[in-house]
Amino acid sequence: MDPQTPRHKSLAGQTVTVDLDRRRRCGFPEVVYGEGKTVEAIAAVFDEQHARGEPAMATRVSPEQAEALLPLLSGATYNQVARILRRESHPGRPRVGKVAVVSAGSSDLPIAEEARETLDWMGVAVTMVHDVGVAGPHRLPERLAEFEDADAVVVVAGMEGALPSVVGGYLACPVVGVPTSVGYGANFQGLSALLSMLNSCASNVTVVNIDAGFKGGYVAGLIATRAAAGTEGRRDA
Amino acid sequence: MDPQTPRHKSLAGQTVTVDLDRRRRCGFPEVVYGEGKTVEAIAAVFDEQHARGEPAMATRVSPEQAEALLPLLSGATYNQVARILRRESHPGRPRVGKVAVVSAGSSDLPIAEEARETLDWMGVAVTMVHDVGVAGPHRLPERLAEFEDADAVVVVAGMEGALPSVVGGYLACPVVGVPTSVGYGANFQGLSALLSMLNSCASNVTVVNIDAGFKGGYVAGLIATRAAAGTEGRRDA
Amino acid sequence: MDPQTPRHKSLAGQTVTVDLDRRRRCGFPEVVYGEGKTVEAIAAVFDEQHARGEPAMATRVSPEQAEALLPLLSGATYNQVARILRRESHPGRPRVGKVAVVSAGSSDLPIAEEARETLDWMGVAVTMVHDVGVAGPHRLPERLAEFEDADAVVVVAGMEGALPSVVGGYLACPVVGVPTSVGYGANFQGLSALLSMLNSCASNVTVVNIDAGFKGGYVAGLIATRAAAGTEGRRDA
Amino acid sequence: MDPQTPRHKSLAGQTVTVDLDRRRRCGFPEVVYGEGKTVEAIAAVFDEQHARGEPAMATRVSPEQAEALLPLLSGATYNQVARILRRESHPGRPRVGKVAVVSAGSSDLPIAEEARETLDWMGVAVTMVHDVGVAGPHRLPERLAEFEDADAVVVVAGMEGALPSVVGGYLACPVVGVPTSVGYGANFQGLSALLSMLNSCASNVTVVNIDAGFKGGYVAGLIATRAAAGTEGRRDA
Amino acid sequence: MDPQTPRHKSLAGQTVTVDLDRRRRCGFPEVVYGEGKTVEAIAAVFDEQHARGEPAMATRVSPEQAEALLPLLSGATYNQVARILRRESHPGRPRVGKVAVVSAGSSDLPIAEEARETLDWMGVAVTMVHDVGVAGPHRLPERLAEFEDADAVVVVAGMEGALPSVVGGYLACPVVGVPTSVGYGANFQGLSALLSMLNSCASNVTVVNIDAGFKGGYVAGLIATRAAAGTEGRRDA
Amino acid sequence: MDPQTPRHKSLAGQTVTVDLDRRRRCGFPEVVYGEGKTVEAIAAVFDEQHARGEPAMATRVSPEQAEALLPLLSGATYNQVARILRRESHPGRPRVGKVAVVSAGSSDLPIAEEARETLDWMGVAVTMVHDVGVAGPHRLPERLAEFEDADAVVVVAGMEGALPSVVGGYLACPVVGVPTSVGYGANFQGLSALLSMLNSCASNVTVVNIDAGFKGGYVAGLIATRAAAGTEGRRDA
Amino acid sequence: MDPQTPRHKSLAGQTVTVDLDRRRRCGFPEVVYGEGKTVEAIAAVFDEQHARGEPAMATRVSPEQAEALLPLLSGATYNQVARILRRESHPGRPRVGKVAVVSAGSSDLPIAEEARETLDWMGVAVTMVHDVGVAGPHRLPERLAEFEDADAVVVVAGMEGALPSVVGGYLACPVVGVPTSVGYGANFQGLSALLSMLNSCASNVTVVNIDAGFKGGYVAGLIATRAAAGTEGRRDA
Amino acid sequence: MDPQTPRHKSLAGQTVTVDLDRRRRCGFPEVVYGEGKTVEAIAAVFDEQHARGEPAMATRVSPEQAEALLPLLSGATYNQVARILRRESHPGRPRVGKVAVVSAGSSDLPIAEEARETLDWMGVAVTMVHDVGVAGPHRLPERLAEFEDADAVVVVAGMEGALPSVVGGYLACPVVGVPTSVGYGANFQGLSALLSMLNSCASNVTVVNIDAGFKGGYVAGLIATRAAAGTEGRRDA
Repeated sequence: MDPQTPRHKSLAGQTVTVDLDRRRRCGFPEVVYGEGKTVEAIAAVFDEQHARGEPAMATRVSPEQAEALLPLLSGATYNQVARILRRESHPGRPRVGKVAVVSAGSSDLPIAEEARETLDWMGVAVTMVHDVGVAGPHRLPERLAEFEDADAVVVVAGMEGALPSVVGGYLACPVVGVPTSVGYGANFQGLSALLSMLNSCASNVTVVNIDAGFKGGYVAGLIATRAAAGTEGRRDA
Repeated sequence: MDPQTPRHKSLAGQTVTVDLDRRRRCGFPEVVYGEGKTVEAIAAVFDEQHARGEPAMATRVSPEQAEALLPLLSGATYNQVARILRRESHPGRPRVGKVAVVSAGSSDLPIAEEARETLDWMGVAVTMVHDVGVAGPHRLPERLAEFEDADAVVVVAGMEGALPSVVGGYLACPVVGVPTSVGYGANFQGLSALLSMLNSCASNVTVVNIDAGFKGGYVAGLIATRAAAGTEGRRDA
Repeated sequence: MDPQTPRHKSLAGQTVTVDLDRRRRCGFPEVVYGEGKTVEAIAAVFDEQHARGEPAMATRVSPEQAEALLPLLSGATYNQVARILRRESHPGRPRVGKVAVVSAGSSDLPIAEEARETLDWMGVAVTMVHDVGVAGPHRLPERLAEFEDADAVVVVAGMEGALPSVVGGYLACPVVGVPTSVGYGANFQGLSALLSMLNSCASNVTVVNIDAGFKGGYVAGLIATRAAAGTEGRRDA
Repeated sequence: MDPQTPRHKSLAGQTVTVDLDRRRRCGFPEVVYGEGKTVEAIAAVFDEQHARGEPAMATRVSPEQAEALLPLLSGATYNQVARILRRESHPGRPRVGKVAVVSAGSSDLPIAEEARETLDWMGVAVTMVHDVGVAGPHRLPERLAEFEDADAVVVVAGMEGALPSVVGGYLACPVVGVPTSVGYGANFQGLSALLSMLNSCASNVTVVNIDAGFKGGYVAGLIATRAAAGTEGRRDA
Repeated sequence: MDPQTPRHKSLAGQTVTVDLDRRRRCGFPEVVYGEGKTVEAIAAVFDEQHARGEPAMATRVSPEQAEALLPLLSGATYNQVARILRRESHPGRPRVGKVAVVSAGSSDLPIAEEARETLDWMGVAVTMVHDVGVAGPHRLPERLAEFEDADAVVVVAGMEGALPSVVGGYLACPVVGVPTSVGYGANFQGLSALLSMLNSCASNVTVVNIDAGFKGGYVAGLIATRAAAGTEGRRDA
Repeated sequence: MDPQTPRHKSLAGQTVTVDLDRRRRCGFPEVVYGEGKTVEAIAAVFDEQHARGEPAMATRVSPEQAEALLPLLSGATYNQVARILRRESHPGRPRVGKVAVVSAGSSDLPIAEEARETLDWMGVAVTMVHDVGVAGPHRLPERLAEFEDADAVVVVAGMEGALPSVVGGYLACPVVGVPTSVGYGANFQGLSALLSMLNSCASNVTVVNIDAGFKGGYVAGLIATRAAAGTEGRRDA
Repeated sequence: MDPQTPRHKSLAGQTVTVDLDRRRRCGFPEVVYGEGKTVEAIAAVFDEQHARGEPAMATRVSPEQAEALLPLLSGATYNQVARILRRESHPGRPRVGKVAVVSAGSSDLPIAEEARETLDWMGVAVTMVHDVGVAGPHRLPERLAEFEDADAVVVVAGMEGALPSVVGGYLACPVVGVPTSVGYGANFQGLSALLSMLNSCASNVTVVNIDAGFKGGYVAGLIATRAAAGTEGRRDA
Repeated sequence: MDPQTPRHKSLAGQTVTVDLDRRRRCGFPEVVYGEGKTVEAIAAVFDEQHARGEPAMATRVSPEQAEALLPLLSGATYNQVARILRRESHPGRPRVGKVAVVSAGSSDLPIAEEARETLDWMGVAVTMVHDVGVAGPHRLPERLAEFEDADAVVVVAGMEGALPSVVGGYLACPVVGVPTSVGYGANFQGLSALLSMLNSCASNVTVVNIDAGFKGGYVAGLIATRAAAGTEGRRDA
């Protein structure tokens, strides 16, 4: 379940149900969509997952929610830019795979950070490449060496949303485009960037919803963990 | 380059340039977008790739184009439903990875076939699952066993475009949704299915353009070939 | 008249006119659309209907309006989630017919509750089925037995709005889809769910406006009361 | 399954599968969506249903298809305006329930006829009321007596799509609005009528897709057959 | 100039220029669009017009602006529902012509009042007919006698915007439809009503912008004053 | 009834009903919308109106339809540019009122001609002013003297649709804007011109549907005939 | 006047008026928009301009029109890709200024050629740079030296329309973006490229209509001819 | 880089990087997009540019930001209407070129001022022409003499956005249209003006994003500085 589909009823008097079977079915535990949830509801899920040794994560958590939750959840950390609250189950575990999160301008940073936190929670190694939008076309090539061996790249861009096409043209791995609502006027709250990415002339570009940093990171993380393991070996075994 | 961005000039009197460096940069040779190209232009690319031992492929090739091309290109085959013309370089090579192409209704078949041919050309093993749209909700679970170990799934659906969400809910691997223009009225030539897939409540669903069977297959193929090989091993080596 | 078309003038100094002929023409008394109405205007309608033994109901009533109205209207109750204020005329009367209100995620709850209160006010028996969205596709079949004998089903869903198609595929009765504005980005305030439901491949799905929980419940209630009575007998009599 | 979701593969060389369990699950046999199907595929479904005593129906059948099919299917009839081909299993069976199909202008006739044929195939009694659009506002009241006892009304209208609201204001039964693409300019192929019906100020109006005469008739038929039978009795029995 | 195009600069330090030639060119003095204007700017225009014996009017004036302006402008009156501030030059002058302002629901009242105040300022006799929306179809015919001799009718409606078509069907005079933004969901801030009115099947319906009560009233007033005078006589004279 | 709402059933075997009461209710006889009608249906209406001394008119009549109709209808004339077929009842009657039809470019001519024929059929005097679009801004002022005494002006323009605002700024009479679908690209089949006219900063501009030359002419004709007569006198009489 | 606004009436029997004052007002003679014009109308304009020593040009001329016109107009040439017919007045005159026309893919060639012919007709030197779309990001930098001293650059691109941003990032001169309708699905006939260019993060990018090769070339030509001359000198002189 | 693409990270703890190479590549120093930036980040850029003798400018700076910044930056000035903060490096330098900024109504003034400040910062001479919208069509011709020798004209207009076409028809120089979001209803936040300008029938009109006063001024400034210098001479030298 996408954190955008809250499962846990947060309205007063309603009980909380955690989908503890999630890791078996989907490979990763359930994520909490924090927007509109009560502090009690979020804390309950974190505690139940903690008891089972699962890492917990909630997206779109406001600073006010975080301020109330952090004292209740020992070991939890909050990234205000990404609006993500997390608690690691095995903090020191090694990273697998490699994903780059590439963003066009500094206003795209919150969505890029949401992707980065998601990947970190999945245990995937992440490289961040900021501020390489197409209007400064010399910037991206200078930094390609940092991520040309990535298993997947998340590209976050608003306004004209052209960056995924350019990144896709340089690399062979899958590129997950995340359009953002950064812009004004004929941007129409991200529609311009969304259409650009859907019409990308690069064959390796796919797209998620506007401002969907979590989903962009999640899909890239799935690709990277599978690439890291080598499923062919697993399937034959 | 997406086959939708024709590189080869097909207007009378113009020369043809094949991007023979493509496999090194992107892992696969260049694909020809057949729509509007002359028979001569397509044949020239196929011949040049054949001379170098590369498999050739052209998308959106009409039956009329194919009828003229097949006598010129020994060993080439044409799939009229998919509108794809191909010539294998090493016909007997073993398949790697595993991708399922799942489609909702029989009108979605041409786009599903375009994805299948693309995957076959990439050397990826494919499982086809037709006619499992959500209005007959018992159909999909009956066939899950055929592809639950896939590295990636391409889901092709028009009308309300709900199938990728349901497939995404059953499986842990990345799902590439391909909305089709199948439908009428408030479908708005595929907009309805496109928006559905972008708003999917399943975390593992990404989306490509309407009717973009080639791109859906291509991205799934990239995921599967990487998963099959296990990049972690390659990177450390 | 839909409560969305307020008949009673609530601007200062204007008189209130209740359509007391409504039950004869339409089968049910007039409903007050509470948004923007004064406390005095709503109270006057409730009192006039009470005097005639009619059950009263107002939709889209804010907590502030309800707090002022409850002391004035003995026997009235307020459902804050549904934003509905009601006063029963014959509290103990038996229920007729059977309608299920099925919702996809917990954010859809307010609209589902608006439908439920409407049906309760109509005297129709209601079964609530929450949190069975398509991304957890095992959830709906587990609960089908609770409502497979319903006369009509109201399905409330935001985001990709796929649930009515799936419910429609399992059942033979009419399904009234209520798209909600739950979602973000390419959801476009409910447009995505609306288009999905209009393009449903299930033949028994009809649609009402975005967030129109009252109308969804009302139409399902009309179907159920007629089914319960058996009009054929009535017409022949 | 909506006839808009063809189940039977009509591409050369593909086999035909009829969903013979349909009547048990959904109350009525499968309907064939004729557009793009081969004559052989349609004939095969009709024959298989005939063998089991099921009435057969295909929608969106062109005159060319019909001309080829009629000699093959004894007892079949074709309504060119509705584009529907049917074969009755029990031609003389009595009608149940009562549905009115009300249309605004003569250009809406093909969609109204599609609804009428569907209802006739379901065994529901139908009253047709043509040419009562709102610009001649005296016309509808003159004809109300013909259908004021209907179990459900299908209202077919293009252009401004206002007729369902007016019909809904006169009657207590459910009204299924079918917007048509009749109009030009700012009609945007039926969008204007669709939005009008979704925003109807009458509480008893629901909506189906643009030009969806089959679905409008089908839902009204479901309501009428249930109303005719009286489910309350059935459920208690 | 439409009051929507403010001519008078209201930013601090800027001078005010009144178009005192307006009555000669356009038949009526300039109207002030109050939104965003300073109290000083509005007062200056009113004073200058007063000095020349012109009636003054400002639209979209907030209660806060009005509270500050009324003590400065003797004889001025403010209609809070219409948000219009006016000062008559010749309060007792006789009315000419006849316009009806017909509205669908009570939420449309502010726009209807804006039209009424405009007509009153033009010196045109006005008949107000409220709450005759199409969902209560018996209401309009009951009141037709009040305005069947009007020179023009302004029809104000939100939601499905069907009322102008019905009014247009009953009468021979020009009908000016004013769509309002009243509604929610698929109303899209008045788009639904706007499209309905543009697609009206009544030949005598024209349309102005969403919520443009001033313009609707102004055009109807132009028609009525010309009809009252009889231009044929004037032209021949 | 707008000719866009055909009343006469033209499908084979259907009878024709002429609304002979139209002149009494609406001031003018019924107009036939020719598109899709049979030659027989159109001829029948013309003959019936001829028998009663009514002038007949059909819009959107193709050259093929006209070629077949002209030999059947003595005295009828066909304007191929306007696609209008007419038969005068009293050819020599004097014109009343005065309307100008002003158009922006020569591609707008068919719609301007449709308006002119409509006005001529109504017995209104018409002045045609072609080719005065805003990109040649000196052209309009040079020709103002030809129509500054008009009772109403119909302004026909495609592309940016700016002409009605400019005409409205020069004149005091009502301006009926008719947007046309002339243009390409971001014109979106007339949407650009339609929005321009709806947002006109001139207070005297109203709008009809895209390419609705008949309706534009009809409304202007209603204004002019009333202005010519002087309703005040009539009402007092 | 834009050639898209045909001034010359081409309907049978209408006379042709050439705006011979155009060069004085706008710097260049009138251009004929060929679409829908008769051969006679186009030939008449060319002859009149030839008599006065003006170069003639017509855009959007079909091969059929050209075939008929070329024998009539000695010295005229036709570019079938650009659909432009021209006749030079002073073939050997030197070029002034420098404009580059840069295009993304070979399907954009017709629009690029339309721009090139327009510039050539204006007497401006042109450099063509084809096939440098962003998905092959190494291609543009390799060719920058060819046009880095241009006075203005016209960038023609369809699909995601990203190329103007990248070109704008490399250069200081004005960039005129011409979006094309090349693409499919969520391209929406060029909307995607249009929005991209309007939202460009490069400060020096302006935009013209979809497929408006003539206008893109024309504006760039105006910039270049002014830059070449140096207006400062002219103004002071 | 467009100021809309902030390069300087303003989030707490992030360092600031100024693109000091900008003048060489693009002809002008970097501009700061002030919205959402911290006071410290903006001050740091201004100080660094001041140290190098560069003029500094920040757009979309709120009064609150300006109040905090002005005491820190000696010599800086703030235009509250334009929301621009600037510091001149060489205050007395002579102006080059000539640009006119023409606006339609007083609500368009903030965008016109943003263009004017940008041009002033570029060292270009500016002529302001306010309040010449098309509804008062006599106003523009009266003021043409003030700017008919301009190198480029920026035309700022909301509502129907017709002014650039009219200006373009009077002048031969490039016209940069800046649509504004001024208006209501069917204006759709500037969409109406944007489409008008893109569809302009004047050949010399290009367009930038809605409310993009900076970009409009910047492009006009580029044209004027090049025209002033005369590039032909420079290139040959």
